[in-house]
Amino acid sequence: MRQDHLISAAQLSREDIEAVLDRAAEIDADPAAWQQRRAGQVLGLCFFEPSTRTRMSFDTAMKRLGGRTVDMGPVESSSVKKGETLADTVRVVEGYADALVLRHPYEGAASMASEFVDVPLVNAGDGAGQHPTQTLLDLYTIRENVGLDDITVGIMGDLKYGRTVHSLAEALTNFDVRQHFVSPESLQLPRSVRYDLHESGAQVREHTELDEVLPELDVLYVTRIQRERFPDENEYRKVAGEYQIGVDDLSRAKDSLTVMHPLPRVDEIAPEIDDTAYAKYFEQAHNGVPVRMALLDMLLEGRR
Amino acid sequence: MRQDHLISAAQLSREDIEAVLDRAAEIDADPAAWQQRRAGQVLGLCFFEPSTRTRMSFDTAMKRLGGRTVDMGPVESSSVKKGETLADTVRVVEGYADALVLRHPYEGAASMASEFVDVPLVNAGDGAGQHPTQTLLDLYTIRENVGLDDITVGIMGDLKYGRTVHSLAEALTNFDVRQHFVSPESLQLPRSVRYDLHESGAQVREHTELDEVLPELDVLYVTRIQRERFPDENEYRKVAGEYQIGVDDLSRAKDSLTVMHPLPRVDEIAPEIDDTAYAKYFEQAHNGVPVRMALLDMLLEGRR
Amino acid sequence: MRQDHLISAAQLSREDIEAVLDRAAEIDADPAAWQQRRAGQVLGLCFFEPSTRTRMSFDTAMKRLGGRTVDMGPVESSSVKKGETLADTVRVVEGYADALVLRHPYEGAASMASEFVDVPLVNAGDGAGQHPTQTLLDLYTIRENVGLDDITVGIMGDLKYGRTVHSLAEALTNFDVRQHFVSPESLQLPRSVRYDLHESGAQVREHTELDEVLPELDVLYVTRIQRERFPDENEYRKVAGEYQIGVDDLSRAKDSLTVMHPLPRVDEIAPEIDDTAYAKYFEQAHNGVPVRMALLDMLLEGRR
Repeated sequence: MRQDHLISAAQLSREDIEAVLDRAAEIDADPAAWQQRRAGQVLGLCFFEPSTRTRMSFDTAMKRLGGRTVDMGPVESSSVKKGETLADTVRVVEGYADALVLRHPYEGAASMASEFVDVPLVNAGDGAGQHPTQTLLDLYTIRENVGLDDITVGIMGDLKYGRTVHSLAEALTNFDVRQHFVSPESLQLPRSVRYDLHESGAQVREHTELDEVLPELDVLYVTRIQRERFPDENEYRKVAGEYQIGVDDLSRAKDSLTVMHPLPRVDEIAPEIDDTAYAKYFEQAHNGVPVRMALLDMLLEGRR
Repeated sequence: MRQDHLISAAQLSREDIEAVLDRAAEIDADPAAWQQRRAGQVLGLCFFEPSTRTRMSFDTAMKRLGGRTVDMGPVESSSVKKGETLADTVRVVEGYADALVLRHPYEGAASMASEFVDVPLVNAGDGAGQHPTQTLLDLYTIRENVGLDDITVGIMGDLKYGRTVHSLAEALTNFDVRQHFVSPESLQLPRSVRYDLHESGAQVREHTELDEVLPELDVLYVTRIQRERFPDENEYRKVAGEYQIGVDDLSRAKDSLTVMHPLPRVDEIAPEIDDTAYAKYFEQAHNGVPVRMALLDMLLEGRR
Repeated sequence: MRQDHLISAAQLSREDIEAVLDRAAEIDADPAAWQQRRAGQVLGLCFFEPSTRTRMSFDTAMKRLGGRTVDMGPVESSSVKKGETLADTVRVVEGYADALVLRHPYEGAASMASEFVDVPLVNAGDGAGQHPTQTLLDLYTIRENVGLDDITVGIMGDLKYGRTVHSLAEALTNFDVRQHFVSPESLQLPRSVRYDLHESGAQVREHTELDEVLPELDVLYVTRIQRERFPDENEYRKVAGEYQIGVDDLSRAKDSLTVMHPLPRVDEIAPEIDDTAYAKYFEQAHNGVPVRMALLDMLLEGRR
């Protein structure tokens, strides 16, 4: 991989993805070997909206590489409030850091910001746009559990608004993966995403019920259906309830089924599943650390 | 000490307590010798309510051991707001860290959370519940100044609601300590605490005035009487005023009297006492660092 | 330099200033040589009002010296809210750190606080008072670009309320510098500052238009004219507009002109200037790191 910035998972070839996942696996196998790797280097964290989970994961990743982080802190108390542009803010923070992580509420912010800085910039989510390290850690979790060749993946929940889901689905077209999408009709994949998947030659099918496809799945990726998407509380309850899974629902699944979720969950996955071998969502969250370590390490390479 | 978690001071035997205090004393004697001790390890700070002082003290302790910290940040911007359970949050953060510190507004939260994680968890205060590292640093300060054998300790102020006081009083029953409690009638020790102290064979007496007992004391532990405890401002002022101490009030005390306070103080202790040899409350606050270094070091032992 | 605290730029002699700038230049020339310099030491950040930029710069500086930082966090969640005095807060934090950085909304706070602590304290801005490290990084930027002898500096914008400007102007009287002040009449230098400059033997002239003096300048230091200073939006727009600069405005300037700004800017300097050789304001912001590294290193000397 020879990239200056990571803005979108779509910019990564299959080879790029595999290079990151391979390095993450190396790190996972012997983390102690990496704990001085980026000593003396500094990562700047620019979160223009809060995202505790993502921030902690990047923070941990840089520290486990022996590096340091400096954090812009909440935007309410920053120069942004005085009318500073994003371009100015990132150019100032660039002077403190060897690489930047940017989270921003507006789609396209990461790409725009990256044009103003010379240090590597990683998009940690820009509104309805991209969140490529989430995609990489999802792929890593799938690969570690069932491999990325000749598998069947089900993606269930809110497929209309889910940035995570769109990015994962497109990334999976790099691999030999059959994809099944399960959602209420009102939350199906947007036409544009469906089109892109077909263009990429993806093997895609859509369903309104999990039952139809569950027995075939190697991976079931569950996402949250947000209350805000529905005008009416009752409507929401009815729909959301149909896409929650309990232990009994999994009786017809393969024993080796891997259940994933980007977290936080509310009640999409019943707690009793936590204690089964299906549950990989905490492992998935933890995988953010080696995957981001790998990515940061590769972007910082040759910049010491 | 072979404990996975530290939830309550009550779980510690006299031997456990002495082991922590002994290590803290070793650290205090030569801090530089410990500054690489936990290099490469990460402490996760999960503060579900703010507590600047306690957070900074743990943060400093881990860093003075050569370790790193990652902080969940304020709960307002975390996944908790999206409805995530405490059990889920700590299981995610566990993936980033080698040990966790938990502060939570609800009694029992630390014990509950500890059942979900495999890394050591330290309770940094859970509502009306426990705050065991405060107790350990109080004991350390007493031991360093007057020892923990054959001494007389006075505890004054709000004895009804003071979590700190209850925990310290119970911990002191492990040692040969005479305890005197000084408070307005409306803020006396709760019946349950008094009962527990008697059960532990504690030598306890209660007073409404400091004068009766001051000359005997080796330690005077002052706590704040909170305005919120009184329905009426005048009533509060009258009562609180009687439990404030000035330099003159200490004229009948032993020269070696150690005055302590968990801080922050408002006007319980007059500033002119700061410059006397009695004042040990800043030293007490600073002792949080070696005591927490000792505790973290022991909990992390064998986990590298 | 043998100083315990840095409260005001005025306490620094020309020799003191040059010692800090010399060390900053050494650090800039080979940052890697300094990255273990303060390993094992801790800097306490006490920001009683937010200042993202300054906080990040100190944070980065300490980390690039191999040290650690502990941050008090926002004042809303601190013991200050419980009525704790500044004197108590800094004495508690002193116990965690080898040096303190203090930012406070009230003039004189840094000087007062410094009387209560034994570790070095750096004033990072106290209201309308002082912000000496800003002055040092301004001087460093001037010296690196055009030297500090026999030069002409123009300072433009809000000269009435600008703490940064007053401090810089007074510090420049230590060097062979001709100073020109450009501002609307309503925002001219306060009489007291003008008086002090004359007392120091400064070569000072005041203008209402940049054109009169631009061709002579080696440095043009632009500051923001704040909306809040004007009772009326139209009046503000008219005045502010006259003190904004674009590329065309600089056609009569020396080719070697250095344009500076303490940032954040709003529209005082047009973005097209960013790509010219005049623009040194981002470099200026970045210089905060080596200058603060130099200062912290000198204050911590002999305290390991």
